[in-house]
Amino acid sequence: MTPEQEAVIEANKNFYRAIQSLSIEQMDAVWWQDESARCVHPGWDLLEGWEAIRESWQRIFEDTRYVRISVSLQSVRVEGPVAWVACAEKISSASEGGFENALVQTTNIFLEHDGQWYLVHHHASHMPS
Amino acid sequence: MTPEQEAVIEANKNFYRAIQSLSIEQMDAVWWQDESARCVHPGWDLLEGWEAIRESWQRIFEDTRYVRISVSLQSVRVEGPVAWVACAEKISSASEGGFENALVQTTNIFLEHDGQWYLVHHHASHMPS
Repeated sequence: MTPEQEAVIEANKNFYRAIQSLSIEQMDAVWWQDESARCVHPGWDLLEGWEAIRESWQRIFEDTRYVRISVSLQSVRVEGPVAWVACAEKISSASEGGFENALVQTTNIFLEHDGQWYLVHHHASHMPS
Repeated sequence: MTPEQEAVIEANKNFYRAIQSLSIEQMDAVWWQDESARCVHPGWDLLEGWEAIRESWQRIFEDTRYVRISVSLQSVRVEGPVAWVACAEKISSASEGGFENALVQTTNIFLEHDGQWYLVHHHASHMPS
């Protein structure tokens, strides 16, 4: 494992910590905040640009009382200032509607700036049960 | 649109031409052929490495009589030797089992080598209907 790969894995962990914290400020710190950011939540349409992505997390956080995610890292590749991670997420969550468990397959793309890795593209989709 | 972006879009088109051709040789020409390649077909688990990915396309091509894909390009970003594309696919296909229509959201990551762009990571998932 190279230092770059370790830094990317740490950034990937911080993303899942931010989800579990239900804190939009923690989520702010994770993302590449411009128009080029992209996000696909499981079963959603593509969201384009940081503004739309931030709103979606706010909505998710407002609707969620509790969420725990167990992440199985499948691979990480770094090419210069770009890195991408494949991982499987086991999500347990609670909302007004009740409890939910989901298995999700994810591609996360990160960009490096000033020694920090930021999430610029998140694509998550339901796995076969 | 920069020349690099145009070259990536052309590589992306060649991927969909290869699917529609049902030709494994055309698919061979599109992919980054090593252990680091990754592929998520809609509703499938992650495939790791070119060998597993190639086998999956062979299986899909054997089971498919006809497939047409209308691709809506949503965005393309190039960072040095890495590029990623977000696109929506409208797939019409015919197999022994009958006709099928599907809407798919896709992330394609490309790597550049000797002036050519190769698909190294494909993540496709069903969109809400």
